[in-house]
Amino acid sequence: NQSDVADREQGRAFMPKFDDSGLLSAVVQHAQTMQILMVAFMDREALEKTRQTGFAHFHSRSRGRLWMKGESSGHVLEVQDILVDCDQDAIVLKALPKGPTCHTGATSCFYRSLDENGLHPAGE
Amino acid sequence: NQSDVADREQGRAFMPKFDDSGLLSAVVQHAQTMQILMVAFMDREALEKTRQTGFAHFHSRSRGRLWMKGESSGHVLEVQDILVDCDQDAIVLKALPKGPTCHTGATSCFYRSLDENGLHPAGE
Repeated sequence: NQSDVADREQGRAFMPKFDDSGLLSAVVQHAQTMQILMVAFMDREALEKTRQTGFAHFHSRSRGRLWMKGESSGHVLEVQDILVDCDQDAIVLKALPKGPTCHTGATSCFYRSLDENGLHPAGE
Repeated sequence: NQSDVADREQGRAFMPKFDDSGLLSAVVQHAQTMQILMVAFMDREALEKTRQTGFAHFHSRSRGRLWMKGESSGHVLEVQDILVDCDQDAIVLKALPKGPTCHTGATSCFYRSLDENGLHPAGE
């Protein structure tokens, strides 16, 4: 109802809204350059681990498990700030990456730009 | 297989990977300030409409339909560039917003920051 919506949008209580699969969207943005580094999903466990440790954790939909970004590569994401959106179903992690974020070796997973002819290397 | 993965990650063909619900994640970033404005989902139709018109369209999971951001408020998002991630299941729209992006009147939907005590107004 209206009061629930107001609480969720304007309140100070964190009430994450997970979807039917128990997930919310998480965007990682470089805390200094503002570049968007990756997008993934978090379940309640990933969110708790991230808040407890200060390193970004996600839920892998394909592997069906918790993972810490950088757990094998060492390219962890040190979280500086967590932003929450109006309806609390998406978050932004402002982070400092220890190395490239993308598993391909690119700084960001968003290394291609789309135009009418297809994909090409992004300008940055 | 390996060759499909290489095509998807390194190729020039746009092969959007929709999830089991037919959706991919879409992040809107201000093309000039780099602020993250909102996060939503797109299905094939929303993606096509966005590319055709140059204005951001999404798929509403709650309403089960296509919507153009700003269709009622007039606060449309003029898309300047579309970035695609490594596995092509998430995109970033670099956009110029005509007015506040959040329905609450805030510039960005991410107007709150989370700490151990809950939510508080974000610094910017």
